Amino acid sequence: MKAFAIEGAYGFDNLRRVERPIPEPRRRNVIIRVKAAALNYRDLEIVRGTYHTRFPLPLVPLSDGVGEVVAVGEDVSRVRVGDRVCSTFWQRWVAGGFEMAEPDYQLGGPFDGVLAEYARLDEQAVVPAPEHLSDVEAATLPCAAVTAWHALVTEGALRAGESVLVLGTGGVSIFALQFAVASGARVIATSSSDEKLERAISLGAFAGVNYRRQPDWANAVLDLTGGRGVDHVIEVGGPATFSQSLRAVRVGGQINVIGYLGGTEGFINPLDIFRRQARVRGIPVGSRASFEAMVRAIRVKQLRPVVDRVYPWTEAIDALRYLESGNHFGKVCLELSG
Amino acid sequence: MKAFAIEGAYGFDNLRRVERPIPEPRRRNVIIRVKAAALNYRDLEIVRGTYHTRFPLPLVPLSDGVGEVVAVGEDVSRVRVGDRVCSTFWQRWVAGGFEMAEPDYQLGGPFDGVLAEYARLDEQAVVPAPEHLSDVEAATLPCAAVTAWHALVTEGALRAGESVLVLGTGGVSIFALQFAVASGARVIATSSSDEKLERAISLGAFAGVNYRRQPDWANAVLDLTGGRGVDHVIEVGGPATFSQSLRAVRVGGQINVIGYLGGTEGFINPLDIFRRQARVRGIPVGSRASFEAMVRAIRVKQLRPVVDRVYPWTEAIDALRYLESGNHFGKVCLELSG
Amino acid sequence: MKAFAIEGAYGFDNLRRVERPIPEPRRRNVIIRVKAAALNYRDLEIVRGTYHTRFPLPLVPLSDGVGEVVAVGEDVSRVRVGDRVCSTFWQRWVAGGFEMAEPDYQLGGPFDGVLAEYARLDEQAVVPAPEHLSDVEAATLPCAAVTAWHALVTEGALRAGESVLVLGTGGVSIFALQFAVASGARVIATSSSDEKLERAISLGAFAGVNYRRQPDWANAVLDLTGGRGVDHVIEVGGPATFSQSLRAVRVGGQINVIGYLGGTEGFINPLDIFRRQARVRGIPVGSRASFEAMVRAIRVKQLRPVVDRVYPWTEAIDALRYLESGNHFGKVCLELSG
Amino acid sequence: MKAFAIEGAYGFDNLRRVERPIPEPRRRNVIIRVKAAALNYRDLEIVRGTYHTRFPLPLVPLSDGVGEVVAVGEDVSRVRVGDRVCSTFWQRWVAGGFEMAEPDYQLGGPFDGVLAEYARLDEQAVVPAPEHLSDVEAATLPCAAVTAWHALVTEGALRAGESVLVLGTGGVSIFALQFAVASGARVIATSSSDEKLERAISLGAFAGVNYRRQPDWANAVLDLTGGRGVDHVIEVGGPATFSQSLRAVRVGGQINVIGYLGGTEGFINPLDIFRRQARVRGIPVGSRASFEAMVRAIRVKQLRPVVDRVYPWTEAIDALRYLESGNHFGKVCLELSG
Repeated sequence: MKAFAIEGAYGFDNLRRVERPIPEPRRRNVIIRVKAAALNYRDLEIVRGTYHTRFPLPLVPLSDGVGEVVAVGEDVSRVRVGDRVCSTFWQRWVAGGFEMAEPDYQLGGPFDGVLAEYARLDEQAVVPAPEHLSDVEAATLPCAAVTAWHALVTEGALRAGESVLVLGTGGVSIFALQFAVASGARVIATSSSDEKLERAISLGAFAGVNYRRQPDWANAVLDLTGGRGVDHVIEVGGPATFSQSLRAVRVGGQINVIGYLGGTEGFINPLDIFRRQARVRGIPVGSRASFEAMVRAIRVKQLRPVVDRVYPWTEAIDALRYLESGNHFGKVCLELSG
Repeated sequence: MKAFAIEGAYGFDNLRRVERPIPEPRRRNVIIRVKAAALNYRDLEIVRGTYHTRFPLPLVPLSDGVGEVVAVGEDVSRVRVGDRVCSTFWQRWVAGGFEMAEPDYQLGGPFDGVLAEYARLDEQAVVPAPEHLSDVEAATLPCAAVTAWHALVTEGALRAGESVLVLGTGGVSIFALQFAVASGARVIATSSSDEKLERAISLGAFAGVNYRRQPDWANAVLDLTGGRGVDHVIEVGGPATFSQSLRAVRVGGQINVIGYLGGTEGFINPLDIFRRQARVRGIPVGSRASFEAMVRAIRVKQLRPVVDRVYPWTEAIDALRYLESGNHFGKVCLELSG
Repeated sequence: MKAFAIEGAYGFDNLRRVERPIPEPRRRNVIIRVKAAALNYRDLEIVRGTYHTRFPLPLVPLSDGVGEVVAVGEDVSRVRVGDRVCSTFWQRWVAGGFEMAEPDYQLGGPFDGVLAEYARLDEQAVVPAPEHLSDVEAATLPCAAVTAWHALVTEGALRAGESVLVLGTGGVSIFALQFAVASGARVIATSSSDEKLERAISLGAFAGVNYRRQPDWANAVLDLTGGRGVDHVIEVGGPATFSQSLRAVRVGGQINVIGYLGGTEGFINPLDIFRRQARVRGIPVGSRASFEAMVRAIRVKQLRPVVDRVYPWTEAIDALRYLESGNHFGKVCLELSG
Repeated sequence: MKAFAIEGAYGFDNLRRVERPIPEPRRRNVIIRVKAAALNYRDLEIVRGTYHTRFPLPLVPLSDGVGEVVAVGEDVSRVRVGDRVCSTFWQRWVAGGFEMAEPDYQLGGPFDGVLAEYARLDEQAVVPAPEHLSDVEAATLPCAAVTAWHALVTEGALRAGESVLVLGTGGVSIFALQFAVASGARVIATSSSDEKLERAISLGAFAGVNYRRQPDWANAVLDLTGGRGVDHVIEVGGPATFSQSLRAVRVGGQINVIGYLGGTEGFINPLDIFRRQARVRGIPVGSRASFEAMVRAIRVKQLRPVVDRVYPWTEAIDALRYLESGNHFGKVCLELSG
């Protein structure tokens, strides 16, 4: 089969097309023929070599994929040949708190990912894709969507009537927007682009704040919530935005620390968490149970992921560079042709 | 002021118009001029004298009302003169589990209720009414809506993608339908009337089951959920329907025992709860915190309670008799004219 | 290897010694050399043929065992050769709610159990045994102890200062007593034997109620709790005791329906659950995550399971008959000699 | 009656003995004759004038007191004359999340506190004192003990078998130690004094770490937990200790940010919360419901608060200066003579 692997050293130039044998299913394995994949910021960092860990090479990258089950090993109970399934990021986190994950088992590094015609996965690490989604749409779910769901629903116990602030319009933020709207919450989005804010509003956001025009955007959020602040923040900006997130959240509200699109440098006084009586937590994507609960919601509400652009999988490097530009709204995807 | 009180003995005939002094606000009291009220099955039972407790007479009945604050006592911090507020059923259950309620403090028996031009309430026992609701709509919230919210959201932690079964089309069931739809859940309703099922579907229900045509309606619910069963049941039928509810709920699902519209006689084997691994709980309306969280959801989703009929408050007996007929869909209300 | 299997038909007479090949470890399997086993009421019912399901024969019975890992298959990450591990009852319930269990995967029926010199288990279905326990003590954990923990802690969120009622002195009840005491709760035990009540008190119970002398034992429990009722009930009696359990629990309290030692026939009015505002749930043993959390508690508190009697494993039938007698206090166990 | 009030300006010199009329009970009020009080760091800051808010003067300070109810106003249902009750810090936070508190209603500033012979409190803001405690012991509960309970139990859902790290040996940390031990948890304490660590161990701590000898104490904590880290941290040190707390907590563990005994200056990178996947939250003392649940635990386990020193109430300034020295282990208290 054809695949792409980082070989020899990290860097875009070393992501090369390779030939590999089609994997065989062992006990409790499934083999999928990959139909589509989606990119995450982590993938970009891994390929570039800027990720905090450098996994042994060669490595087939990418965590998010969807495919058709073409073979199953012994003792597989959860799926059958012909099923269309998504991969899960954590290969051994079935359910429960993060202490139940086996942290070494991450797809797309250290374990070979889905930038290949076929992939071998454990049966416990796949989830049937919602029928109403295209392959490309279904491919977006494993990391970005599960992260948003895990933050807001599994950990955050989001309920109708609450308010959610999403920073920016990347994959996690747009999924958070959609799940929050589907759950009856009021969503405020931020962006540097009025056009993106318009799109957020067309997806159901209550209001948008252009942080370029309002650098002190926490005040705008407070105004939009009658001074109360929001119940939940999807904090993907990192140190550069955290202080304002802490001002924009209500007393006792929740901040989900997910990313660092605004850079990794910067500091806060931890007493500000005390002063705001906030709850701050890191979000490590989520378990398969979170994924399955999310799929039920996607089915019931017939939600469709927002796909910004689709590239042929052979143009993965272009796709990664586009993701790097930060101009996307929603997900950047790859499609594998027959 | 004018009021209606049960005097001398229980029974419709003893619900009489009386003259009372307008109450004075004491410390932490508010006085409301009642603008609308709503009826609950409990009110019907109290007036008829069939309620399990017989409170001392005379008693001004009705728990659910909305009014304008016309006076406040000393040390009132939560509302001001001019605010439009709803009463709460439990006068001293602010938040937390039911063990935090003081069970003697129920409005409309033993404490005088809102079938009067003015009512005196503790400031901790009122909730500002959502602005977009009419007086009659806002009057429906204290018992039926809070019960539905407390069952599904406060206790049930309902999340998008789950399924909810509501029995019949009375006040609690219709609110449960609306809150579940607003929260992204899939709702199945039962009724003996196809017309009512059509209305339930127009409110967002996924499907309806006519239990007259399908006396074995649990099977229909199982079919509609792919054999899995529903996550939540709003069980208002009592012993007559409980066994089927237990078959219709998924393994590990939740049954909220709320009422007994189908009568109070009948039995189950408690081991059936074990066999289904179900969670069964009684729902005692809910706390003010539940009420306030619900109001936020009503505001965000701009929900409107379903009002079946409105009577002048002087025709309270006719309204109670209509409620007794069981022909309503949603709430039966009373309006007080200026 | 030697094993015992039910062959041909159900019944004590058909539990026979058989010779089987030592199992080979496949991918993600571990092979244990069984060192001890413990009996549960379910095992008794399966062997007798009175269990509600009749699994295909032959069947090696027993769910609870401890052994040394003597071989591991490919891709095993959680244990190593030489580790001493307990089996789990649910072979595929790692964590999360019961909807995450795959209900067909039960050890000791339909899957071959641990009444054998060696057993093959999935790596996800074993838990390292606490070091300070003997083999026989460790063997008691998988069903009875996990059931008690899952009821009180995982589902019940037991906290210091609460009260727990345990019915009788069988395995689940005695573990519940120990976990409740270790968690800072106050425990009331019931028994028909003053001697057993004395032993319960020596294990830390606050009080005992002899239900033979006080057939209306719910009143005694109410007296012991100042009229409030207990926060948690471990209900193993079935329909015969449920009504009193419902009277003995506090308003809003929790009843865990676990067994039916008093028989399976009997009825309640489900409205009594409403009237008491109780929470009633079936308890299906528990997940591996519950097991692991429990083991941490057993280690920290250096708890020791209460073993009533130990038989050589070749006398399994005698042990089952002793269990059937109901005279035990704690667990009945089997020991395999080298 | 006699009282002490801060008059004219902040500072020790302005805490003066004053004469006030004995308060009258209004509706829903209780009047207590104060028998003992306890000091918190907040009291010290208020008197000195270093607290972040400066309340209007004159102000009777101190939040923590115990007294006998000598009069009750109209409509008081929860206590009677003769009851011995503790004050609560939040005068209007009965139960539920912190959003249910009315933050202006704090005892000891802005509301007059308990450094007086009599105090007037709302009936909803008192809790019966455990019978087995002396007045001085009972006086220690409202702030320090409730903070520890709210952090570990109400918010933290502490369960047997978990591990807890307490920083230092002040009031909150020692209560946290006691509640954790009573709940079956394993406790690690830090201190600069071996003698204090010995006392912590005599109270049930599993181990102590002298941070003077081991400035890199997070490593010692990791060693003591087999590299896993602790489940809960009671973080009272502020920015000076937060970074090490974040290293000492397990992946997914909880840090309760409570105080800043090590100073208020210092910074962290908020991404470190993400990297550790920690849950960090500010703890605002707690609700009356938390207080009541804690009292049940104190009763069941017959816990006794650790009182370091008792001063006559007329020597409040000396007591505050002793608290300021930081030499205490447990609580510094005041006693009122008849």
